[in-house]
Amino acid sequence: MKNHLRLLTPGPTAIPDRVRLAMAMPMIHHRKPEFKAIMEETRGYLKKLFGTEQEVLPLASSGTGAMTAAITNLFSRGEKIIVAQAGKFGERWREIAKVQGLEIVEIAKPWGEAILAGDIEEALQKNPDAKGVCIQICETSTGVMHPIYEIAQVTKKYDVLLVTDGISSVGISPAPMDEWGIDALLTGSQKGLMVPAGLSLLAFSEKAWKKAEKVEPSCFYFNLKAELKNVLKNQTNFSSPVSLIVGLREALTMIFEDVKDGGYGGLDGLYQKHYALAQMTRAGIKAMGLEPFAKTHYAWGLTSVAMPKGVAGSELVSLAAKETGVVIAAGQEPMKDELIRLAHMGYVDFGDMLAGLYAVAKSLPEKPQNFDNAYMSIAMQAYENAPRYPKTALPN
Amino acid sequence: MKNHLRLLTPGPTAIPDRVRLAMAMPMIHHRKPEFKAIMEETRGYLKKLFGTEQEVLPLASSGTGAMTAAITNLFSRGEKIIVAQAGKFGERWREIAKVQGLEIVEIAKPWGEAILAGDIEEALQKNPDAKGVCIQICETSTGVMHPIYEIAQVTKKYDVLLVTDGISSVGISPAPMDEWGIDALLTGSQKGLMVPAGLSLLAFSEKAWKKAEKVEPSCFYFNLKAELKNVLKNQTNFSSPVSLIVGLREALTMIFEDVKDGGYGGLDGLYQKHYALAQMTRAGIKAMGLEPFAKTHYAWGLTSVAMPKGVAGSELVSLAAKETGVVIAAGQEPMKDELIRLAHMGYVDFGDMLAGLYAVAKSLPEKPQNFDNAYMSIAMQAYENAPRYPKTALPN
Repeated sequence: MKNHLRLLTPGPTAIPDRVRLAMAMPMIHHRKPEFKAIMEETRGYLKKLFGTEQEVLPLASSGTGAMTAAITNLFSRGEKIIVAQAGKFGERWREIAKVQGLEIVEIAKPWGEAILAGDIEEALQKNPDAKGVCIQICETSTGVMHPIYEIAQVTKKYDVLLVTDGISSVGISPAPMDEWGIDALLTGSQKGLMVPAGLSLLAFSEKAWKKAEKVEPSCFYFNLKAELKNVLKNQTNFSSPVSLIVGLREALTMIFEDVKDGGYGGLDGLYQKHYALAQMTRAGIKAMGLEPFAKTHYAWGLTSVAMPKGVAGSELVSLAAKETGVVIAAGQEPMKDELIRLAHMGYVDFGDMLAGLYAVAKSLPEKPQNFDNAYMSIAMQAYENAPRYPKTALPN
Repeated sequence: MKNHLRLLTPGPTAIPDRVRLAMAMPMIHHRKPEFKAIMEETRGYLKKLFGTEQEVLPLASSGTGAMTAAITNLFSRGEKIIVAQAGKFGERWREIAKVQGLEIVEIAKPWGEAILAGDIEEALQKNPDAKGVCIQICETSTGVMHPIYEIAQVTKKYDVLLVTDGISSVGISPAPMDEWGIDALLTGSQKGLMVPAGLSLLAFSEKAWKKAEKVEPSCFYFNLKAELKNVLKNQTNFSSPVSLIVGLREALTMIFEDVKDGGYGGLDGLYQKHYALAQMTRAGIKAMGLEPFAKTHYAWGLTSVAMPKGVAGSELVSLAAKETGVVIAAGQEPMKDELIRLAHMGYVDFGDMLAGLYAVAKSLPEKPQNFDNAYMSIAMQAYENAPRYPKTALPN
């Protein structure tokens, strides 16, 4: 039977109709008043989204471009940074820092575990000359959220910058920059923000901008001081990715719009929704006898599921797409077959997640222990009874 | 009166309805078969467009990102390159090379002039250790086309790479890489290719790839060897800008489609059209008593017009937008007011250019010498009687 194509991958995520249609408007010029008005509105929304009084810079790049921009604008060759890694994207910080010629102190933990505030404090005590701590907020490859609120309480006490990759957390779970003391926060457009890939967003704290003043950017394309000057004039340094910024403006309008007008009612509504979907998905997975891969610090935007013995994640994912139209993700190398990842970030609701849970159950080679249709009702109960989301995004 | 917004700027250019609507389709995942099929088709078209058997790499960046990628993947710190500059974008090569730590030999000519093959040969003879020649095909800031066909006949004789910025020429005037001997050709999506900004395209010759093998890319985001590996699997290294690639596929389909089906009938039809529009615009401008700024090597994608004494280009442009809805470009710093630039690249036809000529005439503070409505008929005659375009893109 012909089912809808349902994208439950941790990026790209589904694009709301109104965002797609907004992006289909005729082209406008990025140095003219029509565009500047769109940028001005977008800037205001972005500051609220990032929880900062600083400017949020839009860059024509994927999220990895913003990670590159953060490293190359904040740290000079030879400086020491601490890199927290327990998954593929933690490794990416290390790779970028290596190309930049930084001295790297690595806190490595097995995939699936969280890097704790104590781990960071220990590394900072051993390395008082470290200039930065680079970490993911949500490690997309494992579905784990590092406890950034607690980590920020530690880094605040040291003369270091806390540089965070919010690619799978911005618009999904809270991390207000100014309040928590985050020095760099970045994301991509294709996850919580419900826009196609190709646009990234990056903000620095006042402290980070001061540090950036002393750094000569090593890549011409990512010159954030030049970007900042332009953003203050509602411009970008080079040709603006106009259609993506128009899409972002529309998505942000939706996020901050009243529920009665079809919006999310602001960040509170947005975070509560993703938190409830995480409870729902986790409960459904457990009810069908499967094990969530992230034991404690689970992400709000995706649920990683450990595969039972003899089940290959990549095969389950192919089968689910073929049989149900639901596209979920396998693990990432080297854990391709050990995991599946069911995303609930961006423009998804409980109905999509019911379809997602069904797709998983249906694609298991044999019915697991306790498997019956009750997993759906159990999931719905968890959704309906989800407690108020924890403001610090720490596990309950 | 309410007129259409008509974008006659040298990027961004108007996006055809069918491209905008194609981009509005629901999101698909960039690691799945649906996307790979789109990439495969796009790759085939791009090779024809660039005139090369090598792969054309799509990057999530503006055109300047592709310029940065070319320099940082082809030349190592300390190597010497020749930079040809007679406008703002020639200067950009120099700035990128400077950040990369290259030794720069500059061939500088006044804005509005072309860099000739003899200029390049002289520089190569004086600098036998130069590893590359970086040049624009069309210098967008002045509306001049450098004679790349003739220049390539020179660089071929030396052990250097000819690195060309085709941002305002690809899809507008011919520069078949393999046939002419161009070692790097790059462009952005928002000019001749009729797609929103945010996607750039870059191809290397076999010789350039050999050189790139010896270079350690200095910017993590622009690792072209990793991009090449991915493109061969119909992928990109990082998250693909899916909507822009879907738009590009549609635009390329239009370019290569038969005229009877609504397409351009291939590259020949595309180049002939832009050549005829250049003849038309130039004739119309002259007929109203104004002077084209580019005397001989004029671009096919835009006509630059010198402003008469007492007329500020930026004011004329504002007035034209307000009175007629036609958006044209002023000069770029430092020639902001000395020039206007009327673009005829991408999705424009004679009707748009008639509106453009009218917008210029109407916005002049006083009617210039010879000014009467005959300039429109003169322009149309030039359009209708345009000769066959010169295959080498050299002036007739």
